[in-house]
Amino acid sequence: MQENRFAVVAEVGDRIADLSTPRPIVDEDRMAANISRVQSYMDANGLRFRPHIKTHKIPALAAAQVAAGAKGINCQKISEAEVFAAAGFEDILITFNILGPQKLERLSELHENIAGLKVVADSTVTVDGLSAHFADRKPLAVLVECDTGGGRCGVQKPEAASLLAKRIVEAKGLVFGGLVTYPKPQSASDVEAFISQTLALLQTEGIACPIVSNGGTPSLFEAHLVTSATEHRAGTYIYNDRSMVRMGHCTEDDCAMHVLSTVVSRPTADRAVIDAGSKALTSDLHGFADFGAIVGYPQARITSLSEEHGVIDLSNCTGDRPKIGEKLFIIPNHTCVVSNLFDTMVFHRNGTVSRVEEVAARGLVW
Amino acid sequence: MQENRFAVVAEVGDRIADLSTPRPIVDEDRMAANISRVQSYMDANGLRFRPHIKTHKIPALAAAQVAAGAKGINCQKISEAEVFAAAGFEDILITFNILGPQKLERLSELHENIAGLKVVADSTVTVDGLSAHFADRKPLAVLVECDTGGGRCGVQKPEAASLLAKRIVEAKGLVFGGLVTYPKPQSASDVEAFISQTLALLQTEGIACPIVSNGGTPSLFEAHLVTSATEHRAGTYIYNDRSMVRMGHCTEDDCAMHVLSTVVSRPTADRAVIDAGSKALTSDLHGFADFGAIVGYPQARITSLSEEHGVIDLSNCTGDRPKIGEKLFIIPNHTCVVSNLFDTMVFHRNGTVSRVEEVAARGLVW
Repeated sequence: MQENRFAVVAEVGDRIADLSTPRPIVDEDRMAANISRVQSYMDANGLRFRPHIKTHKIPALAAAQVAAGAKGINCQKISEAEVFAAAGFEDILITFNILGPQKLERLSELHENIAGLKVVADSTVTVDGLSAHFADRKPLAVLVECDTGGGRCGVQKPEAASLLAKRIVEAKGLVFGGLVTYPKPQSASDVEAFISQTLALLQTEGIACPIVSNGGTPSLFEAHLVTSATEHRAGTYIYNDRSMVRMGHCTEDDCAMHVLSTVVSRPTADRAVIDAGSKALTSDLHGFADFGAIVGYPQARITSLSEEHGVIDLSNCTGDRPKIGEKLFIIPNHTCVVSNLFDTMVFHRNGTVSRVEEVAARGLVW
Repeated sequence: MQENRFAVVAEVGDRIADLSTPRPIVDEDRMAANISRVQSYMDANGLRFRPHIKTHKIPALAAAQVAAGAKGINCQKISEAEVFAAAGFEDILITFNILGPQKLERLSELHENIAGLKVVADSTVTVDGLSAHFADRKPLAVLVECDTGGGRCGVQKPEAASLLAKRIVEAKGLVFGGLVTYPKPQSASDVEAFISQTLALLQTEGIACPIVSNGGTPSLFEAHLVTSATEHRAGTYIYNDRSMVRMGHCTEDDCAMHVLSTVVSRPTADRAVIDAGSKALTSDLHGFADFGAIVGYPQARITSLSEEHGVIDLSNCTGDRPKIGEKLFIIPNHTCVVSNLFDTMVFHRNGTVSRVEEVAARGLVW
């Protein structure tokens, strides 16, 4: 179906308003402005910037991020790193505990092919597994993941971070690469406290820490407050979405991705049904009570999704109400998961299709 | 990447427990039993059964459903119908209002290639659009979608259903195909009342109604209570999922799909993190407060998902707690959306891979 999948999408020069729906579309100019705005901030604050490609999974977009000044990329899984390594990227940080024989084998194949592969670990199990595999191979850089309040992965205390760093230093086949954190928003002081304490402990151990990698888009413009950080990672900023608007990172006019959909039914005066459901918008609420913001209809609410239908409550609409056949531009709650649903992404400039890219790293295991 | 996507998956004969994760897997025997159980019920009650392929999007599975006795298939979008028509299926009902020039063109191409294409409509806009396109072409069967309480698409009253049926009868290029409803669970009497009243009105108009198509898995075993129905549509029953267990349609032992994942971190005594996040399980809650049931750990709760991580709260676990590297079998809240995330589906019998199928109809627009 691959050829067909491309055939049915769109041609350069098509009008966005004429495209069949549902499908995500990306505004080239807004995306370029998002890349530029964030890179300028990182440059102004002397932070190396490592974009997370999980948001778009498209090598051409990562190339634009690097051309703007980014240093290396961030991947969340080996398959993403494989796709981007094949596209010529060398400095790749996989922020994930890699476990199991198949993943270790794929990881070492990848490591043989590029210069700057790095992974993270937050346990002796992960470190020892990496060491056993890489003991007689090209040494692999491993960063210690720290839970500075994000509540996901990561060692819980600076002492634990220092101990795990020491274990990496002493492990065959591994090189200590530094520290990584994915903090909760607005927690710069907590991050700085955890990291600076860890760096002090490492110093007493005589362990050099080449990289301190902070992350996240929501509080991206507070990255300079984490003075110990040498780099920042962020993904969502390239497209932005409704949750980033709510977090104050951007405005609706900075949202480069819309899900283009069509009103297919108006069963009652207060109900519209669109052709974008959970297989186009995803069910990510991200703290919202509805499933996206409809441009031009601020009082309309997407109250429920089935797989290929979205139900819109129009009861609060004081002005016009969308008609059957009308195209709606929806700002999704979360862009990264929408990218993951479609094999192709359509880009446009002022409403005219500028290019169609394969979402090359989606649909894969690992 | 297509070849690679297959290459990284699994080989027939592999042990499921050895597969890399995260990935959905399907138990062949449970799936076969689900197909047989539902088909037997439909046969015993004299109902034609039309499986909805949106759940699996795999032609080989629809072939097994038809081999068991199903009459035709149900698709939710044109791209699904195109994939299944190319695989040899002729009797296809697309339960969607088809609007817009590109979709109408694709629909007529499809209609030229198969014998039994049918679509639905719930408005004069949809009917008139279909009629304008098919006026000088091979006539298309159009069924009237009725909202019998489901609250999605559909005309609201039997009178409106009868009027729209009459418009189809009188429209150039169209043939009235019957009535369709997708009701809310446990509403057999409401469905029967709406449909029987509509049939009476059609009779007074002298309009024959060849098909009355009822639908849904949750109350599937009440389908015989809708005595006016000539056929039933259902998708989820082939795999089943956590929401179907809650609805009383099946037990956990009837759930054929599991999402296989690995514990990658144990940051605290009460927290485990797995490699299955919203890009493997989806964020579909379907009324639950957590994101799936973990086989063997009934007290563990998947409390939050990021894209490639799932956070599990172990605080209520009185027995063993999962260890780093341990594989977990998760019954997803909703299987149909999980199928949509992966390019391939791995099937197994007693834990040994029996086949790997491409999820042929996923990732497409339209």
